[in-house]
Amino acid sequence: MSTYVLVHGSWHDGDLWREVAEPLRAEGHDVHTPTVAGHGKGADKAVTHDDCVASIVDHVVGHDLTDVVLLGHSFGGTVIARVAEEIPERLRRLVFWNAFVPAPGNSLDDEIPPHYRETFAALAAASGDDTVMLPFPIWREAFIQDAPLELARATYDLLSPEPYQPFLAKLPLTRFYDLEIPRSYINATEDIALPPGEWGWHPRMSSRLGLYRLVQLPGSHEVMFTNPALLARKIVEAGRD
Amino acid sequence: MSTYVLVHGSWHDGDLWREVAEPLRAEGHDVHTPTVAGHGKGADKAVTHDDCVASIVDHVVGHDLTDVVLLGHSFGGTVIARVAEEIPERLRRLVFWNAFVPAPGNSLDDEIPPHYRETFAALAAASGDDTVMLPFPIWREAFIQDAPLELARATYDLLSPEPYQPFLAKLPLTRFYDLEIPRSYINATEDIALPPGEWGWHPRMSSRLGLYRLVQLPGSHEVMFTNPALLARKIVEAGRD
Amino acid sequence: MSTYVLVHGSWHDGDLWREVAEPLRAEGHDVHTPTVAGHGKGADKAVTHDDCVASIVDHVVGHDLTDVVLLGHSFGGTVIARVAEEIPERLRRLVFWNAFVPAPGNSLDDEIPPHYRETFAALAAASGDDTVMLPFPIWREAFIQDAPLELARATYDLLSPEPYQPFLAKLPLTRFYDLEIPRSYINATEDIALPPGEWGWHPRMSSRLGLYRLVQLPGSHEVMFTNPALLARKIVEAGRD
Repeated sequence: MSTYVLVHGSWHDGDLWREVAEPLRAEGHDVHTPTVAGHGKGADKAVTHDDCVASIVDHVVGHDLTDVVLLGHSFGGTVIARVAEEIPERLRRLVFWNAFVPAPGNSLDDEIPPHYRETFAALAAASGDDTVMLPFPIWREAFIQDAPLELARATYDLLSPEPYQPFLAKLPLTRFYDLEIPRSYINATEDIALPPGEWGWHPRMSSRLGLYRLVQLPGSHEVMFTNPALLARKIVEAGRD
Repeated sequence: MSTYVLVHGSWHDGDLWREVAEPLRAEGHDVHTPTVAGHGKGADKAVTHDDCVASIVDHVVGHDLTDVVLLGHSFGGTVIARVAEEIPERLRRLVFWNAFVPAPGNSLDDEIPPHYRETFAALAAASGDDTVMLPFPIWREAFIQDAPLELARATYDLLSPEPYQPFLAKLPLTRFYDLEIPRSYINATEDIALPPGEWGWHPRMSSRLGLYRLVQLPGSHEVMFTNPALLARKIVEAGRD
Repeated sequence: MSTYVLVHGSWHDGDLWREVAEPLRAEGHDVHTPTVAGHGKGADKAVTHDDCVASIVDHVVGHDLTDVVLLGHSFGGTVIARVAEEIPERLRRLVFWNAFVPAPGNSLDDEIPPHYRETFAALAAASGDDTVMLPFPIWREAFIQDAPLELARATYDLLSPEPYQPFLAKLPLTRFYDLEIPRSYINATEDIALPPGEWGWHPRMSSRLGLYRLVQLPGSHEVMFTNPALLARKIVEAGRD
């Protein structure tokens, strides 16, 4: 049995993994779904990227977890890459699921296409508290297009505004790119949250991992809601030795 | 329930949608499969691209259809983009299924690789009536490679010569690219009617749609014959709100 | 019923096709799985690429096989392209399954990314007998990542060192590129033995075939071990008229 720590992406919090964690736990795995600092409804959104990283490090160390399969989704990729720099000795494998693997020195903002960059900057400026809420039409068409409208709406209601500063943090990642922890990339083949091609997830992000294991499944960026059981199965394929 | 207007591609006519329309109708949808001007056996092939567009506009207006999900396959993409410019107020969503989304000012001919361009020009010149018939080996290998040979032959017999002039019409599409009608792209993952990569359907054509919904299914360019029930299901996913 | 000759890739031998050949034979096909010269445990590894080609030509001619569907996997692609130059009159169709289709004048070594080129050269230099053994971590992560660890280990034990000289042989392939034998490309969609993108199998290799039939299946480079029944089915789709 394995120990999984699942790190959610932007607008999400740890509770949203419930339907993915359930089948993993049913198989006997130990599954942790901490909420990243500054995330979730009612959280204080004034956080840095380092705060995000520290909140996951604290969870792993606080629970004295070892041999961890550490998975990051989307923005969560920037977090697990940094967590791996802080506590590599506790990690058995890194799994990036349609996640950012920033090039050395880049921020998340550097890795997204210009139209997203401009949209997010404008939304943050207008927010009053330096956060970004994803507009529903983008959620519905580009994040969760494989859901019926009702599920798209119900899951949208679970989201919360994303702190903007962590998007802008430049991440040297010099230690990350020297680590020899085994790594996997899970790619949902209909994920267009990043537009396929020049700015796409795969192989742009995945190829930065060097020798890595590719696991694919059909589904959108939010297949955790539209097909959680299949995602759980693919997490096992990605996370096993 | 939705109103679907399905616009076929080159060498096809409206009757060939039968096996796709059937399961949609069984779910209660209103499905229209008009034949584009100049298409089908025995039709007068001396038509312009504007004639093609007018024939679909006339069908929609003549039947007073509103809230239409308008789908175009292949060449049909050039038609629905223009129909959308003429009667946007009647359309709820545009769906391009492995269809051309011409760049502003381009003809279909501008969007296909040089070897096709030369082949089609030579066939039109030799035809005597300025039409192009698709050679069987191309149909069998690159359009319907997922069919047994018998089905490939039987469906080939249903095709008819394609008027050549509509391939050459330059389409400004200035209004199309300003429309805010929601749009989807259906991509059959084994479609090599356009060669994958530089000249491929997806993401080359799909990315021109701006914010769009991607739906994929396994199958060839002619999955309407090889897996019509699955295509029908994907049309619903692409066409719903 | 068809006659299939299946040509294995590097580190493999003909016996490893067993689970793929079985369902094909059960359907009544005649299936040959010769071992390429210099391959298999205990074989004399001092062979040239021409020796590899001759061993397959000899098998086909020696058994007086005609109307052959000739399939090559991986390195086997370089072999069947050359076999097709020698005995085109005996071949009904060529099938490349995640196989090399070298550009005219290239060696296999010219078609792989620099990091592989360097790894293989170093391993050959260190081998003492000018062979290359694939390191287990590459096998497990990039060749057979869809297997449980036990199957990855068990199949690794079946492999044998690959003669290095055939990787370096420059192949003019001038006759191959003039042949009009029908051809198919089978692509396993999770195959990262070559890294997706610039150096990938598909469409880089497949597009060199001109008019070709694409058949895809989910799976790794070694789907012959992880899903042999599905591969057999896809071989039939790729090989039929």
